[in-house]
Amino acid sequence: MKCLVTGAAGFIGSSLVDRLLKSGHEVIGVDNFSTGISEFLVDARKSPNFQFYELDLLSQRNLLEKIIVGVEAVFHFAANADIRGGLADSRKDLEQNTLVTFNVLECMRKCGIKRIIFASTAAVLGEPDIFPTPENCIIPKQTSLYGASKMACECLISAYCEGYEFEGYVFRFVSLLGPRYPHGHVFDFVKKLLSDPNRLEILGDGQQRKSYLHIDDCISAVLLISEEKRTALLSRSRFEVYHLGFPDYCHVYESANWICSELDLKPKFEFQGGDRGWIGDNPFVFLDVGKAIDVGWKPKYKIEQSVRETARWLIDNSWIFNKR
Amino acid sequence: MKCLVTGAAGFIGSSLVDRLLKSGHEVIGVDNFSTGISEFLVDARKSPNFQFYELDLLSQRNLLEKIIVGVEAVFHFAANADIRGGLADSRKDLEQNTLVTFNVLECMRKCGIKRIIFASTAAVLGEPDIFPTPENCIIPKQTSLYGASKMACECLISAYCEGYEFEGYVFRFVSLLGPRYPHGHVFDFVKKLLSDPNRLEILGDGQQRKSYLHIDDCISAVLLISEEKRTALLSRSRFEVYHLGFPDYCHVYESANWICSELDLKPKFEFQGGDRGWIGDNPFVFLDVGKAIDVGWKPKYKIEQSVRETARWLIDNSWIFNKR
Repeated sequence: MKCLVTGAAGFIGSSLVDRLLKSGHEVIGVDNFSTGISEFLVDARKSPNFQFYELDLLSQRNLLEKIIVGVEAVFHFAANADIRGGLADSRKDLEQNTLVTFNVLECMRKCGIKRIIFASTAAVLGEPDIFPTPENCIIPKQTSLYGASKMACECLISAYCEGYEFEGYVFRFVSLLGPRYPHGHVFDFVKKLLSDPNRLEILGDGQQRKSYLHIDDCISAVLLISEEKRTALLSRSRFEVYHLGFPDYCHVYESANWICSELDLKPKFEFQGGDRGWIGDNPFVFLDVGKAIDVGWKPKYKIEQSVRETARWLIDNSWIFNKR
Repeated sequence: MKCLVTGAAGFIGSSLVDRLLKSGHEVIGVDNFSTGISEFLVDARKSPNFQFYELDLLSQRNLLEKIIVGVEAVFHFAANADIRGGLADSRKDLEQNTLVTFNVLECMRKCGIKRIIFASTAAVLGEPDIFPTPENCIIPKQTSLYGASKMACECLISAYCEGYEFEGYVFRFVSLLGPRYPHGHVFDFVKKLLSDPNRLEILGDGQQRKSYLHIDDCISAVLLISEEKRTALLSRSRFEVYHLGFPDYCHVYESANWICSELDLKPKFEFQGGDRGWIGDNPFVFLDVGKAIDVGWKPKYKIEQSVRETARWLIDNSWIFNKR
């Protein structure tokens, strides 16, 4: 299969590219390197089945229309993923998420490509009342511009499925961990500890409860559902949403302990107070992943293992701190 | 109170303008006349409390920023309301609904205006499983680009409420009827009957079930909830959604009968078949309006009365058929 991966130089996108190539697929990757990291594509570039284009999906739709010809499935993983920064630059999520997704959908439509696999987020759920939170929860109040923009993308995709007979798979991820992890609390904690091993500033009260998923488990679910089991699942609907996370959660202070243990440090924890890290931070993220598990997916990495492996990877790849 | 009404020359917008002026408010109206009708503002223009600006909210945000200064509440009622035409012009709903709403929110933010009252739609609910459908139903699959764009607006507004401390009232309307009704099935039926009184083409099988609300009842609810009871309701949340419709529904063939009776005609009904009028048409619209009723709202016009009055108004104002 020939497929397109947007955000191909990102944490998730590049991991997906590698797995698709390993499975023998032909992959076209695009990225504008706004947050993507070229080093993540070193392996992929060695493959004769990989083509890469540096392009901006917001402004270079015409170019995308040329590249996309002959593609069977689009993995749309390009996004602005900086939830916290949304309020300081209110246009960014709208442009990089909603408008870029519209551009991708329109290119697909013009070229007769109908299958889209979309990286959404637990952030679209705002602060739910039910835990673990299932896909069919009540319409949420958005708590971030990021969540709002990603929900707008989900809505566009479902409308294209209904109106233009697209086939849409939406995956709402919890925070992902593992090799190539480029931002988030483990990144911040390790970076701070490398700079000052004696103290660790923690946003909020450390009691925030979060679920995490290892990147390998995430990619396995995406490929299982959108590729291997595709035909069977499609009979249900042209548009399906799946929650992806590890079926457990941890407290932020626990993950801080695991990271410190992995780094062999005993810093003083300095909690900044409040029940969340920042406006729009969700103090409890825990998804019901039963729908994905029913398909046959089984996550392998427990949260502690994912956190520890990520901290270790960051230490072993500290060049990444110079990229941010 | 000084308020801004976008889409002021529209069916709903102009009716709102008249009621706000009648209550002694100062009203600034804006409209680009893409679907607005200048005749609807004849009464308003007689009032010294009314100012009107012809402007395009998509491209003239700078102008809006000047006009909006000193406003206390924004009634954002400007929209592309042509659900059926979405698939033929996929950019229109995105631009006229999602992007225009973003522009309005940004202008408000820059000018320190925080109260927004938004005209949403039952179309955001796609094809729900529960009837009557409550506000807190499960996240829907969108069945039209119109619904997708309006849901994106709702998401933006709730994110602004959380992130920028806006105060948002979202009203999801069923189809509205009454004086100034400018498009929809009653409009189409009357227009067809005026052209050929012997036959009436009806899209779908006529069994579609729809709820309708009289414009006067709609405006009463909007003003009661967002103005009169505002302080009491606000304690609950900075963002609230209300469903507005008459707590009953009719079949399309019934409304055709009422219209024919009102026009004193007995045409042959020609059903075009299928369970819906077009792709994205929802064969059953029936909202649970208990939340609005709990606030103290009580709709006065039964559906038959609204349909008959609308047909009568169209006959008495047949100039409107030349506007479309």
